[in-house]
Amino acid sequence: MAASGGSPVRVGIIGATGYVGGEMIRLLRAHPAVELVGLTGRDRKGDPIGSVHPHLASTGLRLDTDLGADVDAVFLALPHGAAATRVPEFLGRGITVIDQGPDFRLRNAADYPRWYGFEHPHPELLDRAAFGLPEMHRDALLSAGAARAAGTPALVGSPGCYPTATILALAPLARAGLIADVVVDAKSGVSGAGREAKAEMLFAEVNESVRAYGIFSHRHTAEMEQELGALARGTGTEAALAGIDFLPHLIPMTRGILTACHVRPTRPVNQAELDDLYAEAYDGEPFVTVVDAPPATGHVLGSNHARVHVRVDPRTGRILAIGVIDNLVKGAAGQGVQAFNLVFGLPETAGLEALPLAP
Amino acid sequence: MAASGGSPVRVGIIGATGYVGGEMIRLLRAHPAVELVGLTGRDRKGDPIGSVHPHLASTGLRLDTDLGADVDAVFLALPHGAAATRVPEFLGRGITVIDQGPDFRLRNAADYPRWYGFEHPHPELLDRAAFGLPEMHRDALLSAGAARAAGTPALVGSPGCYPTATILALAPLARAGLIADVVVDAKSGVSGAGREAKAEMLFAEVNESVRAYGIFSHRHTAEMEQELGALARGTGTEAALAGIDFLPHLIPMTRGILTACHVRPTRPVNQAELDDLYAEAYDGEPFVTVVDAPPATGHVLGSNHARVHVRVDPRTGRILAIGVIDNLVKGAAGQGVQAFNLVFGLPETAGLEALPLAP
Amino acid sequence: MAASGGSPVRVGIIGATGYVGGEMIRLLRAHPAVELVGLTGRDRKGDPIGSVHPHLASTGLRLDTDLGADVDAVFLALPHGAAATRVPEFLGRGITVIDQGPDFRLRNAADYPRWYGFEHPHPELLDRAAFGLPEMHRDALLSAGAARAAGTPALVGSPGCYPTATILALAPLARAGLIADVVVDAKSGVSGAGREAKAEMLFAEVNESVRAYGIFSHRHTAEMEQELGALARGTGTEAALAGIDFLPHLIPMTRGILTACHVRPTRPVNQAELDDLYAEAYDGEPFVTVVDAPPATGHVLGSNHARVHVRVDPRTGRILAIGVIDNLVKGAAGQGVQAFNLVFGLPETAGLEALPLAP
Amino acid sequence: MAASGGSPVRVGIIGATGYVGGEMIRLLRAHPAVELVGLTGRDRKGDPIGSVHPHLASTGLRLDTDLGADVDAVFLALPHGAAATRVPEFLGRGITVIDQGPDFRLRNAADYPRWYGFEHPHPELLDRAAFGLPEMHRDALLSAGAARAAGTPALVGSPGCYPTATILALAPLARAGLIADVVVDAKSGVSGAGREAKAEMLFAEVNESVRAYGIFSHRHTAEMEQELGALARGTGTEAALAGIDFLPHLIPMTRGILTACHVRPTRPVNQAELDDLYAEAYDGEPFVTVVDAPPATGHVLGSNHARVHVRVDPRTGRILAIGVIDNLVKGAAGQGVQAFNLVFGLPETAGLEALPLAP
Repeated sequence: MAASGGSPVRVGIIGATGYVGGEMIRLLRAHPAVELVGLTGRDRKGDPIGSVHPHLASTGLRLDTDLGADVDAVFLALPHGAAATRVPEFLGRGITVIDQGPDFRLRNAADYPRWYGFEHPHPELLDRAAFGLPEMHRDALLSAGAARAAGTPALVGSPGCYPTATILALAPLARAGLIADVVVDAKSGVSGAGREAKAEMLFAEVNESVRAYGIFSHRHTAEMEQELGALARGTGTEAALAGIDFLPHLIPMTRGILTACHVRPTRPVNQAELDDLYAEAYDGEPFVTVVDAPPATGHVLGSNHARVHVRVDPRTGRILAIGVIDNLVKGAAGQGVQAFNLVFGLPETAGLEALPLAP
Repeated sequence: MAASGGSPVRVGIIGATGYVGGEMIRLLRAHPAVELVGLTGRDRKGDPIGSVHPHLASTGLRLDTDLGADVDAVFLALPHGAAATRVPEFLGRGITVIDQGPDFRLRNAADYPRWYGFEHPHPELLDRAAFGLPEMHRDALLSAGAARAAGTPALVGSPGCYPTATILALAPLARAGLIADVVVDAKSGVSGAGREAKAEMLFAEVNESVRAYGIFSHRHTAEMEQELGALARGTGTEAALAGIDFLPHLIPMTRGILTACHVRPTRPVNQAELDDLYAEAYDGEPFVTVVDAPPATGHVLGSNHARVHVRVDPRTGRILAIGVIDNLVKGAAGQGVQAFNLVFGLPETAGLEALPLAP
Repeated sequence: MAASGGSPVRVGIIGATGYVGGEMIRLLRAHPAVELVGLTGRDRKGDPIGSVHPHLASTGLRLDTDLGADVDAVFLALPHGAAATRVPEFLGRGITVIDQGPDFRLRNAADYPRWYGFEHPHPELLDRAAFGLPEMHRDALLSAGAARAAGTPALVGSPGCYPTATILALAPLARAGLIADVVVDAKSGVSGAGREAKAEMLFAEVNESVRAYGIFSHRHTAEMEQELGALARGTGTEAALAGIDFLPHLIPMTRGILTACHVRPTRPVNQAELDDLYAEAYDGEPFVTVVDAPPATGHVLGSNHARVHVRVDPRTGRILAIGVIDNLVKGAAGQGVQAFNLVFGLPETAGLEALPLAP
Repeated sequence: MAASGGSPVRVGIIGATGYVGGEMIRLLRAHPAVELVGLTGRDRKGDPIGSVHPHLASTGLRLDTDLGADVDAVFLALPHGAAATRVPEFLGRGITVIDQGPDFRLRNAADYPRWYGFEHPHPELLDRAAFGLPEMHRDALLSAGAARAAGTPALVGSPGCYPTATILALAPLARAGLIADVVVDAKSGVSGAGREAKAEMLFAEVNESVRAYGIFSHRHTAEMEQELGALARGTGTEAALAGIDFLPHLIPMTRGILTACHVRPTRPVNQAELDDLYAEAYDGEPFVTVVDAPPATGHVLGSNHARVHVRVDPRTGRILAIGVIDNLVKGAAGQGVQAFNLVFGLPETAGLEALPLAP
């Protein structure tokens, strides 16, 4: 079991050949307390990593047959349903699991058949899993870390990209019981759709066009409702958060998510009140900044930073809360590393200090 | 005064050097009943059009000093406020005016200082102007055409790009009194921002990024509220349409607007009812198609087509209405030509038959 | 057999589901002398065209099982090798064939195994085929048309996209025996790679990146050498054109090809001489314009226009000749229509008058 | 004077508001041995850096009025001609200068009026300046560093973006006297054009288009000829490198340069010989990798890495050498930091370890 001070944490990545897997390697390779010891991916055993991720060729890493014996933690970047079947074995071997997929995000086992179309094979693990959004569940992650140090490997369900941006944008309002009604209208770059060859994701199809997708049925809705509903517990606004109107769009860019959350408040609010709520929520957070000017996804590209912007319209009384992230970093790999740091008693920002890339 | 059958209508374009001006030339040059007789633009007198719009070089047209004497109609593509001062002169000379800017779109003179920051110099003309959205105001445009034939030049205020997509998406619901609350979340390519050199519109700033802008203050809100409010008159839902939550976003593409209109209905509706409402509204419309699959802006690129998609969410009871257009065609130049056709007794589709360009 | 004056030419498209097929429909649907009577594509029999090409939904066309009996001409948009086996049957039925693929572009049967890796099944047809670049082979196309009118169906091998831009840029120099050495460095949008789902053509792979491909082995080299060599015949420069250094690049855009042809001339030339050569070559050509300013692919987007720019460097004595086209129009579907027009005695520009789309 | 071991080097940036300035901050902020002490930019004194570079807001830095007294080194990111007038003052104050502009790249004072249109105000400094391409001038940079340690501040002229990619691609061939003739055809993202608002750099102008520019006159030609000519000295091929055919293109992406160098060799070569030459040149170089597959600019995005690919065509005997870099890192800011590291006795890779970002 790796200690936080001494020898590095030995980490494997299952599903290293996709976009999230590549991003995990990019981040963990630069992590001061991590040693990458096992990278597995479909049918690519022994291949140099550069044959799959050309940008990572200089690492000299290779894809492995299997994880090897002596691993402290694994990150799983697998299709939904695939992680659920494999996690018990890892936990049984004493390996902490950070699952980048959805299999351990939802508390209610019934949500899996409902939103994902499969019966969860290990519903008993759902309560054990920590929801890996540190800004909302830091204590749970630290507790899981304490248990890990005491011998019980941790299980983290790392949140989805849309929920990350949305929950960060709305949490202070949800907690304050201010959300009477909310429309979440999100825009995403295409890297979130993964690396599989699909005709609809060809450059010529995506370029110079925008479209909505997953209308009324996007699976990330479940996470948003679970987490925002939990934040609103006791405020009398839970019902409003049980039926979120979530609409994602695909836009012609590679990385980045912007969610615009249109809120009808339960009572009149003014800007100063909102400023206080958000300052209270995020002051001191290393990766969340409340900004005065409308944020762009380009402001956080390649980094684990999230930016949140909130405004009340004096004309209509409505509130607009915007969140922006890089979907592959704060929306996936970076978020996983942030949770991992907490679980392993490392500085929360370790390996995540890189500034955004612009232009 | 040009007749619809015989000699072509002699048309000038004031403001021919911008993107809308260029698009007017592209369309009118191919219009079977139009002769382009005067193209004016800032400081470019006598220059070949190809020096300003390289793609139009093969037309052999030149930028003119002034309109010349014998013009039947002018299209104005000018900054807001500039058209208002010049229109009386044109009308006085018997010239029909299609204003592509906002100066003659709003009925209430008080809306100009409120939304645009200037006092309208000719409020007496606002009632005379027809709102140039043929799908909503075909009769008014035909009446203006009849008056024109009888010697009174017509004045058309061609709608803005966002209002066009939004009104087409929402009109059937507004008319039926179904809108209890609406959020209009729009995404636009950057050509709508015009051709002026602004650092924030540089490729390196726009590419790989998305941002909201004009938060709570975009001027097109006024048009949407005016037109949708008028459609809802007598339904008891006017108040809901007097405070529309409109949020535009800039996305990294050149052309295209998608508006996602999130509606809380006044009463439960089912999909069949919506299908009927939209079929009734748009069957037979040459440029509006109600589609079953979520539309993309790429499906209408370069054409005057609009696509509308409407769905009710059985889970939440909400309605989603999406509209897509090419902002420079159905959202500007093409729409102007469509209204012009009606005013001059020409087939409504004349000069607008080109199919969209894809991929 | 369709006459040029009276009833429309009945045209089928084999391979209507790809990008070139879609572009053929877009152009031919607007062609004043064509009736589209058969659109076939893989496994899509009976489907509305909008299910494959959403932008063409308004045409109301459907994909057909087969061509039907009464067809005057077919356009083939098929993978290389596939057309060669099917053409004899069409010709046998008296149907004129415009092949958009490479199977009938090369005169020398040995070039097929060499460049394309297959033995041509009907080498006897290669001499019969006209190379469908009207600016170079107008007489041959007109002769094929005369034969067609007399009862012998025509066979046209429509040139590739890179050769079109390159040959137009270099032809005047080749003909004048001025090319001692030439490097052709080309840049293309990705639509030329077709519509098949390949991971390397995903938006996330193509966006924000440029790469060379087909190094020393791109099949279009054969066409360039054949055609430019033929133009140079008798000038003593044939050898220089038998080993063209052709390098294509993939750049992050959908449409457009720019070829930069770097020429070491056989003797010193001056700009006036070049201007004369190019004016002589292209004056009066409806689709080729010699321009003084460096052309951009954006200047011809969506149109059948080509632009050519030629300059001599007073410092080094070298010549630069640049050609730009839209690869799907002048580089594919539009070129095919242009040749078709000649073969059927129609105005060469019929169906091809649309101006480019910009911005 | 800062030592390499102990206290950090105190660094200022003159011209911190442009793209290169922003990239300098991004890199130097993460540099383990640097303290940023003065950021100056036009008219922005006292403004938080986030008002100019939103992505850098989290640094908390501000734009300064002036450099302050105690500075060890300055990076200059200024328009050409501006640095030349200011450098003597910095040197006089004992401050080492890394000039990111062209004012100290050329050895021959006559090249400034010829290529840049200005008389160099301090030609006496040209010999003193080191050409800041470490792979070619590491010894000179180390010598400048030794002199610096002994009290004489260093002056480095950091190379241009195109020359960097081109020289790295061609150096082994030039040195071996293999270049009989060379065409350098380059493709660049638009960030190299800077951040000034120019209409031709608007997103709508650049997107979906490619064009050549600077035909026969791009200023970077001078650097390429100077450096490659020097490498070829004594080989008898100097003349071939005195008239390089250099053609840059602007393509629709933000970052990245690919140069394709088409070489006619002085004698027949085979691939093994080329492989040896390039291995010899670059084995052990921390930032240059010779790759077997054609490299893409996307493989080095955001990093200081360069990739070089060389192939001989067995058919024609020609050589193709390709170089790719990120123009803002290895082509500007990163290269400057690399030279700075050498001059200050720091590890050459300090602050430059970040892996490329993909997708």
